[in-house]
Amino acid sequence: MAVQTVASTTDSTVDLGPAAALSCRECGHRVPLGPVFACEECFGPLEIAYDFSAYDTEELRKQIEAGPANIWRYAPLLPVPADVATKPNINPGWTQLVKADNLARELGVTGGLYVKDDSGNPTHSFKDRVVAQALEAARAFGFTTLSCSSTGNLAGAVGAAAARAGFRSCVFIPHDLEQGKVVMAAVYGGELVGIEGNYDDVNRFCSELIGDPAGEGWGFVNVNLRPYYAEGSKTLAYEICEQLGWQLPDQLVVPIASGSQLTKIDKGLQELIKLGLVEDKPYKIFGAQAEGCSPVSTAYKAGHDVVRPQKPNTIAKSLAIGNPADGPYVLDIARRTGGAVEDVTDEQVVDAIKILARTEGIFAETAGGVTVGVTKKLIENGLLDPTKTTVVLNTGDGLKTLDAVAGTGLTATIRPNLDSFREAGLA
Amino acid sequence: MAVQTVASTTDSTVDLGPAAALSCRECGHRVPLGPVFACEECFGPLEIAYDFSAYDTEELRKQIEAGPANIWRYAPLLPVPADVATKPNINPGWTQLVKADNLARELGVTGGLYVKDDSGNPTHSFKDRVVAQALEAARAFGFTTLSCSSTGNLAGAVGAAAARAGFRSCVFIPHDLEQGKVVMAAVYGGELVGIEGNYDDVNRFCSELIGDPAGEGWGFVNVNLRPYYAEGSKTLAYEICEQLGWQLPDQLVVPIASGSQLTKIDKGLQELIKLGLVEDKPYKIFGAQAEGCSPVSTAYKAGHDVVRPQKPNTIAKSLAIGNPADGPYVLDIARRTGGAVEDVTDEQVVDAIKILARTEGIFAETAGGVTVGVTKKLIENGLLDPTKTTVVLNTGDGLKTLDAVAGTGLTATIRPNLDSFREAGLA
Repeated sequence: MAVQTVASTTDSTVDLGPAAALSCRECGHRVPLGPVFACEECFGPLEIAYDFSAYDTEELRKQIEAGPANIWRYAPLLPVPADVATKPNINPGWTQLVKADNLARELGVTGGLYVKDDSGNPTHSFKDRVVAQALEAARAFGFTTLSCSSTGNLAGAVGAAAARAGFRSCVFIPHDLEQGKVVMAAVYGGELVGIEGNYDDVNRFCSELIGDPAGEGWGFVNVNLRPYYAEGSKTLAYEICEQLGWQLPDQLVVPIASGSQLTKIDKGLQELIKLGLVEDKPYKIFGAQAEGCSPVSTAYKAGHDVVRPQKPNTIAKSLAIGNPADGPYVLDIARRTGGAVEDVTDEQVVDAIKILARTEGIFAETAGGVTVGVTKKLIENGLLDPTKTTVVLNTGDGLKTLDAVAGTGLTATIRPNLDSFREAGLA
Repeated sequence: MAVQTVASTTDSTVDLGPAAALSCRECGHRVPLGPVFACEECFGPLEIAYDFSAYDTEELRKQIEAGPANIWRYAPLLPVPADVATKPNINPGWTQLVKADNLARELGVTGGLYVKDDSGNPTHSFKDRVVAQALEAARAFGFTTLSCSSTGNLAGAVGAAAARAGFRSCVFIPHDLEQGKVVMAAVYGGELVGIEGNYDDVNRFCSELIGDPAGEGWGFVNVNLRPYYAEGSKTLAYEICEQLGWQLPDQLVVPIASGSQLTKIDKGLQELIKLGLVEDKPYKIFGAQAEGCSPVSTAYKAGHDVVRPQKPNTIAKSLAIGNPADGPYVLDIARRTGGAVEDVTDEQVVDAIKILARTEGIFAETAGGVTVGVTKKLIENGLLDPTKTTVVLNTGDGLKTLDAVAGTGLTATIRPNLDSFREAGLA
């Protein structure tokens, strides 16, 4: 990928609220806010540096609690202008934290088990959180086109957000994607471009486009807007703690695709501690992968610091990133917090989807099957303490991965009379 | 249908909050709260009579505003116990009221256009609202099985709610339903029984079951629990007004299936006026149907008070009730408020789904295409005033009716290079 290291639209008057600068995660080098994602010194990933110094803890808490029932209640902690809630955006977040007592009984958890159910977002995946952030950055930088490469959830989130905000959208996908996924992305009416090639070819082409004049005015949500985009995942940490009554959970089980979500959830928890919004105490973060794409889990178990890329082969397509950019950071967080990284087979994923639906009425996409399945496995192998408060993430919706549970069907077929009903043993 | 007129489980100690009795909509005859739905005097439909006499307007408003971000914030106005929010339920509601400025421009609305987007509910349709009420009634009456006949949204809502609350569920569907719909209903793990026959046969069988000992302990959400179930639609009226800053909209466009939703929205608005929570002013309610199932629209246009049944033939399957029980009440409300009832063709439904997705990033099911399409038509024929505040309901999710927009697809296919990108005119 061609690395763009110099901001093309840097502007010191950009208003992104408390965001003060971009800072390199590796070397700490700071640059002004702009549509850049890699450090000019060391090529490390840039992330947002904030100025939270003016905040009074109790005033901030009050402001948040009086805010809207979406991620903008946390505007003071995000790279967005203070009046963000008045701008056209899809306003995701404040999704249900379900107290999962039936699932807890099934898994033997006694310390309190919760499912953070992000299928309640506007396009029914956590991607709405990150795209909503990227959209605000795109607006601040004067971009007029919102773009991404995708094979699923991201395409819908970008299409919907661009439509709402009056941006042009142009989403790139492999040309031979399943028809259902094409429809879900195409319905928002933006450009939906099929690339003759596989997903790697699509990504390579997008990087080429960013460096070309043809890509001027284009915000690629997960490339040149990535530092802003990624911050959206912090809102999961904020919401979980606020919904627990401003408390840290003891344990979190988070899916790993690129690893960005897990690292930003940790960042969000650390911010809440530093701001005094929650009491400091130890928490453990567990990463969850599918066996068919488990580069981070494999590295974790081998005790490696480096993640060796894999060729994905799993039904959990929304997690199927074989070379996860934030893999090393995930390893670091899992080890530092006393968590772990674990993986489950596709069969276990399907079983876990059914367990969650049967016990809690939540129909998760395959990624939710991964986290529930991994939670079960972590309890069985003694790595997750069932007597502690545990939060499991469901990041997407079962309606988008119906094929995974296609074997589910009628429990009985009867004739329309009571005799037939009784014969079937249903009375 | 065998009409069950006497409560089998009437119990004066049942705690359903402000619900005081059941009252016949036709003759006013009152009976104690119980699992009955038809008047023993005149066979008219029973509905909930409340005792709101103890409420102070401003205290009530404060209590609501401090409540949870779901329908239970309105517990003081619903047939549920005061502590309902602490019980296991799917907790729907408080869905987004989207200020639809792009759609307004497209349709020429200048007075403020809003979409109440109920695709944000747990199983992504408004049915979660009514099923959540029915579940509380089932709990109060000591039922242990939640049941319904369905061909779609209701099956999922019942399956999910029963799972969450630890009820057995048993859902009856025609045995030859499309596989996708079967999966969506089956995943929650309850009994899913295929009936050899059409939807009428399924309904007939359910009525038979209610009158039989085999159906003892069974709550059919939309039959013997119907008076409670139907009240869930009032929450749409409450939320719309609160989200508008405790104001009545000037105009509402509501889909018509059985007509129950529209009549209960009117009931909810009237309650808010009587309680002083909104200022009294005229509002108009418009009903929306698909041409292929337009018994109420046909009666409205012909000036009839009676609705003649039709055999449905439309892609808007969730509205395809050919003999709508509340049809006459809908006619009365449309005429009394100065609204109207209109219908659109399946082609217009599909167009409207695309318009809503393109302008607002909301992917509606076919029922949402009906309301948006009817809104467009009502403006064109001068029946809906574009200078007034208008709220349009989207009651379901496009992911459940993907077939309707299956023609949507790629806007271009290119090779993975910039030359091909430029040739396609995408730069």
